[in-house]
Amino acid sequence: MDGARAVGQTAYGRLEAIFRRIALLGDARSLLHWDMAAMMPAGGAESRAEQLALLETLSHDMLVAPELPDLLDRAGDEGLEPWEQANLREMRRHWTHASALPTDLVEAVARAESACEMVWREARQKADFAMVRPLLGELLDRVRDKAQATADRLGLAPYDALLDHYEPGGRAAEIDPLFADLEAFLSDFIGRVLDRQRAHPAPLTPDGPFPAESQRAVGLEMMAALGFDFDHGRLDTSHHPFCGGTHDDVRLTTRYDEADFAKALMGVLHETGHALYDLGLPGGRWRGQPVADARGMVIHESQSLLIEMQVCRSRDFIAWAAPRLAKAFGGAGPAWAADNLYRLGIRVRPGFIRIDADEVTYPAHVIIRARLERALIAGDMKLDDLPAAWNESYGRLLGITPPDDGVGCLQDIHWYCGAWGYFPTYTLGAMSAAQLFDAARRSDPAIAKGVADGDFRPLLAWLRRHVHGRGSFLSTRALMTEATGRPLDPAVFKAHLQARYLDGA
Amino acid sequence: MDGARAVGQTAYGRLEAIFRRIALLGDARSLLHWDMAAMMPAGGAESRAEQLALLETLSHDMLVAPELPDLLDRAGDEGLEPWEQANLREMRRHWTHASALPTDLVEAVARAESACEMVWREARQKADFAMVRPLLGELLDRVRDKAQATADRLGLAPYDALLDHYEPGGRAAEIDPLFADLEAFLSDFIGRVLDRQRAHPAPLTPDGPFPAESQRAVGLEMMAALGFDFDHGRLDTSHHPFCGGTHDDVRLTTRYDEADFAKALMGVLHETGHALYDLGLPGGRWRGQPVADARGMVIHESQSLLIEMQVCRSRDFIAWAAPRLAKAFGGAGPAWAADNLYRLGIRVRPGFIRIDADEVTYPAHVIIRARLERALIAGDMKLDDLPAAWNESYGRLLGITPPDDGVGCLQDIHWYCGAWGYFPTYTLGAMSAAQLFDAARRSDPAIAKGVADGDFRPLLAWLRRHVHGRGSFLSTRALMTEATGRPLDPAVFKAHLQARYLDGA
Repeated sequence: MDGARAVGQTAYGRLEAIFRRIALLGDARSLLHWDMAAMMPAGGAESRAEQLALLETLSHDMLVAPELPDLLDRAGDEGLEPWEQANLREMRRHWTHASALPTDLVEAVARAESACEMVWREARQKADFAMVRPLLGELLDRVRDKAQATADRLGLAPYDALLDHYEPGGRAAEIDPLFADLEAFLSDFIGRVLDRQRAHPAPLTPDGPFPAESQRAVGLEMMAALGFDFDHGRLDTSHHPFCGGTHDDVRLTTRYDEADFAKALMGVLHETGHALYDLGLPGGRWRGQPVADARGMVIHESQSLLIEMQVCRSRDFIAWAAPRLAKAFGGAGPAWAADNLYRLGIRVRPGFIRIDADEVTYPAHVIIRARLERALIAGDMKLDDLPAAWNESYGRLLGITPPDDGVGCLQDIHWYCGAWGYFPTYTLGAMSAAQLFDAARRSDPAIAKGVADGDFRPLLAWLRRHVHGRGSFLSTRALMTEATGRPLDPAVFKAHLQARYLDGA
Repeated sequence: MDGARAVGQTAYGRLEAIFRRIALLGDARSLLHWDMAAMMPAGGAESRAEQLALLETLSHDMLVAPELPDLLDRAGDEGLEPWEQANLREMRRHWTHASALPTDLVEAVARAESACEMVWREARQKADFAMVRPLLGELLDRVRDKAQATADRLGLAPYDALLDHYEPGGRAAEIDPLFADLEAFLSDFIGRVLDRQRAHPAPLTPDGPFPAESQRAVGLEMMAALGFDFDHGRLDTSHHPFCGGTHDDVRLTTRYDEADFAKALMGVLHETGHALYDLGLPGGRWRGQPVADARGMVIHESQSLLIEMQVCRSRDFIAWAAPRLAKAFGGAGPAWAADNLYRLGIRVRPGFIRIDADEVTYPAHVIIRARLERALIAGDMKLDDLPAAWNESYGRLLGITPPDDGVGCLQDIHWYCGAWGYFPTYTLGAMSAAQLFDAARRSDPAIAKGVADGDFRPLLAWLRRHVHGRGSFLSTRALMTEATGRPLDPAVFKAHLQARYLDGA
């Protein structure tokens, strides 16, 4: 059958129309979110929250409309083409997740999330876990209800049900050995890297200040070089940098620290990786369909880390970027030499704060959180024991003990806004990034050469073909296998760390 | 009864909930519109248009839901308080307008509007009326269908049905004598003003360039002085300046010409008048209810023109502003003297372009358009005759003949995007502005003194009490009568013109 022509008449065609509307409401919400973070004056907050809640309700209502189950069943018998089949599979996934939760539970979770997140902001500032403990307990209970309801429907363990929301198909049983392997590797590796660093003179820090306008100009220049299309996106500032907007109109944000240009720049490059993925998702007929969505948070994070960590902290990239940075900031002298900037960019320093962590210690932050949230969801740990367990983990994995909970278990918003099951995707993304970049360079010598020459088109073409343009057509595992020849393999990430941090000059 | 407490149970309460949702969708659309004009990269246009169309469809569906007529009828018997009664009246008005049009006509109008507007952009640039004539003919037919359908439902003449959409209660029979009176006045007055101007030395034009950043700073300073609350709004740039956003979060835009600071500044002051109205509309329980909406386009325009024309082109205001302008732009010498800037701001020069027109000739532009659109809607004039009729009118009223249709009947977007019946509100707004400002000054001497001192709080307090805070509680006529002691009276506007342009120093 001709899927495109018959679309109006079939159950499948009706589903495409429904999901197109759901996607448009999602696009509208995404833009309103971006505006809230980047443009909105404070006085607009109350009404904006109501606008967003209404759009979410309307789109949820469309997704759980009574006609959906029958349409999903009938569409399966309509002789669909492969991409239509994959789209139908993703539609069913969305519907299953949404319809697994009774409305009163959805509302209870939302209420518990807003209440907890609001108090968390103050609690973090005051480093006072007890202050937010009751609301976090209430939220954890509701998240466990949600996990159980989804688990019942999907036939999964509760934690896997949460994981599946961010990373379709993600399962603790597959993550556990990967993280165990990595933890064992790091327990020895971090110390060796620190020893090696101490044996060399410390890199020099370029002297600022670095005016925000110059930082912005450099960011825009590098975004453009990497292939960001400014006809389909913008760069603005917000308190918490993110990549938002829609697949046609990606809105990046960053935040400038005039004492340290690297923070905003590396952030911009990271978000550019996310943006290139969004901009390269399938278009045309598939735009707005679930099969054209990003595959999941693991692949999304792999794209940001492939750009930030694999490409932009490489020696080749820094050699290309160094004179451009010196020119933009009027810098001169040894601090601006490529080798110095390279060593500065790969310095390893165990610290308390995940978002400030280097590439080597970052996985430890994630492994700690993943283990703790697993235990809390399973009921194997009491919430009152969280701060002590957190601090004990940091002592064991990183050899440091947070002086208070503000830089300890209160530092990340995730648990306090209901995002349980999200943390593992950061490190799975880092591992996937290493494996994808490795495969890309092996498949086409022009890619490595391009990075050294500041020509990122060969790399982008590979990513478009093997990752971006695949959308959600394949599972994460199948996508990795098709693109790299095997499922996720921690050996590639470990080899990358070994090469950069121990073998490298 | 306690209206607020019983809201959940009553038909009226159900209506408030429905209209609250409709308002939230309207707020979301308004923000997406602003973003489209001020922020969006070109590549986002297609998807944005679909987002906006979907939100409009959803809100239209809510408004014409089958339960509405019964709820509106039952609510009338629920012993409502006066503001609830007015709210119900406005709800019925919205419902009547929306439900008067069959869905296929709404869609036909929308299609004709987009098709015509798109070609108009090119036709205007090429000054080629024939190019857009067929699509304008199609659009005019659909607008006449719409006018007839609304007229049938409201028991009005077709043109009044269009007017009523922008200016509730606006009727050609009431506007005709006002415009006739004004036209008669102007036919003699314009010539006398020009004679008088010629008898004096021309005002000096300050030398630029005027950097956009300095213009923006002055604009922000004067907005703040006038009472604009930056916790509830922003100033940005867009190709076509406007006042958008929501009542909690007003988004002004302007456009800077570095050769002439007055254009953007007077534009910002004009839009600030609109913004102060929006920000002062009833809040609390009434936020999002139809009774808390702006009364109509006449009162809305009266608020922008009261600030721009009545206040900010007054001798007192310019005396306050002149040193601030000189300082902002580093200006010195006679061109920056208050008297010179005042005379520069009230120069009268008949021209082809409405939006560039001065206060004295502006009504002639409007009267011409109002008469021509009346004739076209009534079928008394053929579309082919429009360019000639336009040019003849300009010759008669302003003594000038457009060299081509680009600066003639193609100059305004209104007819080409379906906004028929809108033009009269500009001049009715100008007349209302004069009458309101006159009443305000008479009622409180602190108002005139405040304008001279740069303290606009007494004026804003009067406007909040007599105009902004009234929302749509009263009809335009009742609002004017309560605020000024009589319905709209062209004598006040004529007296204002006489005082400023003939009697003034």
